[in-house]
Amino acid sequence: MSNAPQKAAATTTEGTLAEIVSHAKEYGFVFPSSEIYDGLAAVYDYGPNGVELKNNLKQLWWKAMTQLNQNVVGIDAAIFMHPLTWKASGHVDGFSDPMIDNLDSKKRYRADVLLEDKAAEYENAGDKPRADALLAEMGRLLTAEDLAGVKQLIIDEKILCPVSKTGNWTDVRQFNLMFSTQVGAVAEGSSLIYLRPETAQGIFVNFLNVQKSARQKVPFGIAQIGKAFRNEIVARQFIFRMREFEQMEMQFFVRPGTEGEWYDTWKATRRRWHEALGLPADKLRFHDHDKLAHYAKAAVDIEFEFPFGFKEIEGIHSRSDFDLTQHQTLSRKKQNYFDNDINPETGKPYGNYVPYVVETSVGADRLFLATLCQAFQEETIVEGEGEEQKTKTRKLLRLHPAVAPVKAAIFPLVKKDGLPEKANEIYNSLRHDFRLVVEEKDSIGTRYTRQDLIGTPFCIAVDHQTLEDETVTVRHRDSREQTRMPISALRGYIGEAVSFSRIFEKL
Amino acid sequence: MSNAPQKAAATTTEGTLAEIVSHAKEYGFVFPSSEIYDGLAAVYDYGPNGVELKNNLKQLWWKAMTQLNQNVVGIDAAIFMHPLTWKASGHVDGFSDPMIDNLDSKKRYRADVLLEDKAAEYENAGDKPRADALLAEMGRLLTAEDLAGVKQLIIDEKILCPVSKTGNWTDVRQFNLMFSTQVGAVAEGSSLIYLRPETAQGIFVNFLNVQKSARQKVPFGIAQIGKAFRNEIVARQFIFRMREFEQMEMQFFVRPGTEGEWYDTWKATRRRWHEALGLPADKLRFHDHDKLAHYAKAAVDIEFEFPFGFKEIEGIHSRSDFDLTQHQTLSRKKQNYFDNDINPETGKPYGNYVPYVVETSVGADRLFLATLCQAFQEETIVEGEGEEQKTKTRKLLRLHPAVAPVKAAIFPLVKKDGLPEKANEIYNSLRHDFRLVVEEKDSIGTRYTRQDLIGTPFCIAVDHQTLEDETVTVRHRDSREQTRMPISALRGYIGEAVSFSRIFEKL
Repeated sequence: MSNAPQKAAATTTEGTLAEIVSHAKEYGFVFPSSEIYDGLAAVYDYGPNGVELKNNLKQLWWKAMTQLNQNVVGIDAAIFMHPLTWKASGHVDGFSDPMIDNLDSKKRYRADVLLEDKAAEYENAGDKPRADALLAEMGRLLTAEDLAGVKQLIIDEKILCPVSKTGNWTDVRQFNLMFSTQVGAVAEGSSLIYLRPETAQGIFVNFLNVQKSARQKVPFGIAQIGKAFRNEIVARQFIFRMREFEQMEMQFFVRPGTEGEWYDTWKATRRRWHEALGLPADKLRFHDHDKLAHYAKAAVDIEFEFPFGFKEIEGIHSRSDFDLTQHQTLSRKKQNYFDNDINPETGKPYGNYVPYVVETSVGADRLFLATLCQAFQEETIVEGEGEEQKTKTRKLLRLHPAVAPVKAAIFPLVKKDGLPEKANEIYNSLRHDFRLVVEEKDSIGTRYTRQDLIGTPFCIAVDHQTLEDETVTVRHRDSREQTRMPISALRGYIGEAVSFSRIFEKL
Repeated sequence: MSNAPQKAAATTTEGTLAEIVSHAKEYGFVFPSSEIYDGLAAVYDYGPNGVELKNNLKQLWWKAMTQLNQNVVGIDAAIFMHPLTWKASGHVDGFSDPMIDNLDSKKRYRADVLLEDKAAEYENAGDKPRADALLAEMGRLLTAEDLAGVKQLIIDEKILCPVSKTGNWTDVRQFNLMFSTQVGAVAEGSSLIYLRPETAQGIFVNFLNVQKSARQKVPFGIAQIGKAFRNEIVARQFIFRMREFEQMEMQFFVRPGTEGEWYDTWKATRRRWHEALGLPADKLRFHDHDKLAHYAKAAVDIEFEFPFGFKEIEGIHSRSDFDLTQHQTLSRKKQNYFDNDINPETGKPYGNYVPYVVETSVGADRLFLATLCQAFQEETIVEGEGEEQKTKTRKLLRLHPAVAPVKAAIFPLVKKDGLPEKANEIYNSLRHDFRLVVEEKDSIGTRYTRQDLIGTPFCIAVDHQTLEDETVTVRHRDSREQTRMPISALRGYIGEAVSFSRIFEKL
């Protein structure tokens, strides 16, 4: 094997959200849903490269949870659940946004968003104290559930409807974010059910079924990946906030009193996972929740710096025994666990208790977006020296090879002399192991560019020498270096680079 | 390596559906949904072993489609789609069941099911001609959409409500099977959308986005795995017919006139896939559809022999250009493809056309159930000879190793002398590659039995000799044979057995 590095220096810039949205569509990562019907707001479809990237991210999380830990197992609960589930969880009564209608334009707004926009106006005008005071007052009123007070604040602040330009407002009302549907025949026996607004409850209602069938002892975790649905009124920022989205959640059940140390453990473990995947440490930060739910012990977000600022990609929550206790009350089914371990203070087993829970909850679409934003880079490359020096730019997706949609592209140098046949022979010898493409059209440079743009880590050039000595040239996406190697070495070489193990080793 | 085969002969029987349902719950494959709230009809959750088995089946299908074929790519479209999608597909107007209510019991029934049950009654009483005549007449009336005629037939046949025992029936009406929900704020701008009743339309509306971004030429296919929802009135047979279910669909776009040969190709390919997975040839059969949709060219089901009879697990349909043309009409967006290939008859390119489609559509939950039914076996084992001869039975899941939830279980022979530590060391050295468990409790025989019941292909016993010479005993689930081998050989040995390649080679 020989190296043929190019003499080059590169500087890198990142893309704006608009560039990423456009790139995602053109290169088959994300399409607007039902685009031929002019789309469906806040819903998106994953294209051929998008689905592979997303599946790889999901699988990486799944294996990191259920394969690396003896005491974490998975489930896949249905989206449909018994409606009492959402009574127990508090979603029927409390999962809502304060909405206000303008009587002239008939437009509906989130009351808190109107006030936040007003505060932003003050801040942009240099009056940060006034902005802060407004947000604080709004927070106080919402916490106190004083909706009349919220309306009065909107009137006092002289906030007008952006469409009608009037301040002719209805009262503020709570609007539940759960989607509902009727199940069963309509005449009789039909009932209102909800599309789950989170996957967590599917884990809680299965707690004992899983604990018993998987023979797990506390502490142990249950992991799940699945769709959830929220009727967001203000859906924004591409796939960051969608009405249909996917969560990767793990509920870790612990003995009461040990939740603090497990919270710290998972907080650190999950941050390491994001870094191992390639999100840089300086673009990740912890953000402690300012306000905690009444039952919560602690809550922190892992935030990533998107082009539109630091935003949550994962939440870690110490939830006490709130959910299991609520389900126990409504279902009248004991959610107890008997702990045989000896309590050193009493010399007896810890005995029966409802476990406490530490939750880790990743937004799969947000992680996908973070990965794409981080990977999407534009490089200025300086090649050669002195009078030979040239400057050019290239765009590429610097995806971790383990999650890249295509692991290698195989290029016959020309479309004759048996090179396409040889390329297909290589494809067939590796397709059991990796997702590959064979590209024959266009110059080799154009083909390299195209693979850079979808993040393919390796391009394999098949030339006349290949027919003689069974070697190929492997070109590396990031360095643009080329390495000559035998065809027989490809499986091991690519396999090592794209293995999840390279990420797992860093956890 | 040495073999220590046991002298034994085995005869095998299969389980009833009731046994399989019970086994699925006890061993963490499938739980009734929201069981603590007494369940939700026709909805189920996958437990820790179920989710692994199902994920393995899904991945096997996905890779067989998108990784083994250069001209098949995947997508993941949202469950929510623009409502016009379902107008175009015919689901808004035509996707319904004929329902009838009994006025005394207030119970609602599917009219065709009442008549089918009556026909079964005749057949059980030995009058097959009368049964056949009734079914034929019902088919004629339903095809003609003569609902008054269907009601009259129910009355003529003196069919009574099983609850009220009266024949006091309402008219027969069509009941749409799509679930609907409101999206957006309710006051204004909200709209009725549907939960998709099939995944296929997510592929059709993305046809051009995928074709262009993935640079595919006809013939090519788009594969998708995802949830679909149908408000089934008569949901039956465990996870065979659920209200929320998962499909694995591929739409293969072809030049008009070539659909016949592609239909034959995919029909054969898909059947081979099921056989390669381990469904025996004599339990699979093709069943041509008696009636075809007006646009359809051909349609066949691949049926598997469940404990409740031969039933569809996959459909292969030659759908013409019906769907794309419908979407073209409603969206007013051309769904044309320009075919550069030369038509030998004209000497010119084939040019513009709307491609024809051959669909392969697997019910993922049905495939899961077929796999579980096939794997669940009870063996009578005769051990020893002459006076030493003993007979015993064991139950096991003979799952293909490539889809088994746990690839190997590691057992320290005793809970002392450093054996548990050694077992964990082996676990840690293999956990990047395989899903494994370590079990310390109970006798080794009990532990073997437990792993047999969840289908684990290998059990690795760690004993005192292991500490001396770094070898372990590997016990094989199906043959119960034991093989001594070095720890260092485990990765290769297990890896080879559980590799998807062993299945891909048979395709």
